[in-house]
Amino acid sequence: MKRAAIVATGLTKFNKTEKPLDSIMLSAIKPIFENTRNLDQKDVDVVLTSTNANKNYLANIISELSGIKPKISHSVESLCNSGTNSLVSAYAYVASGLAETALVVGAEKTDNPGLVLNWDVSRGEFRHPIFWASMFASAHMRKYGTSLEDLAYVSVKNHKNALDNPYAYFEKPFSLDDVMHSKSLTENVRLLDCSMPCDGSAAVLICSEEKAMKYADNPIWITGIGQKTISASFTKNDDLASMESTKTAVTDAYKMSNKNARDVDVVELHDAFSVCEIIELEDMGFCQKGQGSKFVRDLYDTGNKKINPRGGLIGAGHPLGATGLAQVVEICQQLGGKAGKRQVPGAKTGLVHNMSAGSTSSTVLVLET
Amino acid sequence: MKRAAIVATGLTKFNKTEKPLDSIMLSAIKPIFENTRNLDQKDVDVVLTSTNANKNYLANIISELSGIKPKISHSVESLCNSGTNSLVSAYAYVASGLAETALVVGAEKTDNPGLVLNWDVSRGEFRHPIFWASMFASAHMRKYGTSLEDLAYVSVKNHKNALDNPYAYFEKPFSLDDVMHSKSLTENVRLLDCSMPCDGSAAVLICSEEKAMKYADNPIWITGIGQKTISASFTKNDDLASMESTKTAVTDAYKMSNKNARDVDVVELHDAFSVCEIIELEDMGFCQKGQGSKFVRDLYDTGNKKINPRGGLIGAGHPLGATGLAQVVEICQQLGGKAGKRQVPGAKTGLVHNMSAGSTSSTVLVLET
Repeated sequence: MKRAAIVATGLTKFNKTEKPLDSIMLSAIKPIFENTRNLDQKDVDVVLTSTNANKNYLANIISELSGIKPKISHSVESLCNSGTNSLVSAYAYVASGLAETALVVGAEKTDNPGLVLNWDVSRGEFRHPIFWASMFASAHMRKYGTSLEDLAYVSVKNHKNALDNPYAYFEKPFSLDDVMHSKSLTENVRLLDCSMPCDGSAAVLICSEEKAMKYADNPIWITGIGQKTISASFTKNDDLASMESTKTAVTDAYKMSNKNARDVDVVELHDAFSVCEIIELEDMGFCQKGQGSKFVRDLYDTGNKKINPRGGLIGAGHPLGATGLAQVVEICQQLGGKAGKRQVPGAKTGLVHNMSAGSTSSTVLVLET
Repeated sequence: MKRAAIVATGLTKFNKTEKPLDSIMLSAIKPIFENTRNLDQKDVDVVLTSTNANKNYLANIISELSGIKPKISHSVESLCNSGTNSLVSAYAYVASGLAETALVVGAEKTDNPGLVLNWDVSRGEFRHPIFWASMFASAHMRKYGTSLEDLAYVSVKNHKNALDNPYAYFEKPFSLDDVMHSKSLTENVRLLDCSMPCDGSAAVLICSEEKAMKYADNPIWITGIGQKTISASFTKNDDLASMESTKTAVTDAYKMSNKNARDVDVVELHDAFSVCEIIELEDMGFCQKGQGSKFVRDLYDTGNKKINPRGGLIGAGHPLGATGLAQVVEICQQLGGKAGKRQVPGAKTGLVHNMSAGSTSSTVLVLET
């Protein structure tokens, strides 16, 4: 397998706008061409778009609008992990030798479908992700004594981290009291435990080792990839205090990169809801099972930005098709020492965790300088 | 780059039914598990779905319904060449070493979007593909003296070939007179010059060289791949009597496989409209430029099934997301000597040509025994 590296990234402010989807995508692509030395449109072999928007031929439209005539172009959809699915697909084109340089761009509008999986029609209103989040929370509370306050700390920490992220949707802090007293959606999910759908786009340029040296002084290498699909329906998950697809994906990613949780300096993980961060920290080996809540409180108390430095989905917002790529953009900035106030000092190895629909599928990526 | 082979295929009858999209896909997948020795659901690393249907998380739904828990699953969309885009993506996963075995399934319902590219809104009713077909026909007539009768021969030949394809949408022959006097849609496109949208699904199992020997006695190797995107909008095509993306894609596919048109025994090409077959035969080197009409008449007069033996899109029907994969299924059957009455004797090397939206993008594949 050939090596592949990320050499440039682009991002838009996460917000709610009147801008159409293709304009948002172009805004994320623009800095890639502006900031990458020696890169010309004719060098781009692959253009992949990642979104839940029902837009036919979107990758071709984005190619034409960007002045690119790629070999390969199509759109990729897998709900909330569409972004990392498209990036791994681009990796495969480069690693196989079919392509040298691939541009991946994800975006979402708040009115795009994808928030509710319409396959689970028999569940009525319980199709909404809030209900699987609530089932996760109930199970973790029962099994490990997790409290509503523990869940609130995830939200407080990630909203605090987001204050140093100029692209984040939220621009103000929330106190523990704010979260504890935000609107109750279920018995254990409050409004501020939830990530917020919003408009946004993220773009990543990935290329072969040979091209990486042409485009960048310090490329970021994708050294570990793990992906796993368990099901489409949430009910297939055996242990509701754990995420089976995440455990398999992280095991494979660590194995491929020859790293483990102790080697990882900075993490972007998929906190669609507060409880997700706690479970994922445990399932990816950053703490013992059942210790996720304590781990989060320690991070908050010490001001440690290692986990979700950009504010995660809860603080930065969750434009579905862009989210996985925005996580990758953050880890690239961290490993490149360009994360400003969010910088985790000396970060050399980063991890991205991106999942869909109650962790029925997960992607884990290990990135290294 | 690792080698990759097709070891099993599945297909449904092309028709118009009340069956939902996922049921049609499962019908195409079923024979793959029934007919492949040593294949178990747990062996499948990748599930890709290919469709223009606006179905979120479809690859996960199909995985769950099929009892598969793959590493990688997502949906791929690129209008009429979604099918070959998903196959090349699966090839990349296998060729890179990220996966050993990948299942690709494409399907369409007649009421799915994709027929009309809604990006070209300023064209009003002229967005419909009939109008780019008419522009191709006008240009080819002006430049090479092609006649309405020449166009009709493509339709007559492909409808005739479809009579030996039990999965084809059309089940009766059409005479030259039938085509010439079918309803005029433009001055040079008649109803029987057009492929017909319909329901249908096709599935392909692709795997590494090591696994190929486990699953099949006579795997079909993918030896050449060429893909090219010129634009999304039809107006970017410089010479309307030629297809720029097809010429680039076929050049790359021939180069990768070290073959040329003379080596190819059997072809499935994208005859969305009669004129397309004539232009594509010329642009892929099966005859001199301007000689496509004569080439088609010779095929018809001699009963030669080399080009579009299953009846092409015109005879077999055009379920968009399935079409590229159905073309691949036909070539695999031909190279495996299992094409029944459609068999091209001794076929060893086959070619698939699949394009979208007036050849604004094209895929060409070379397959070999």
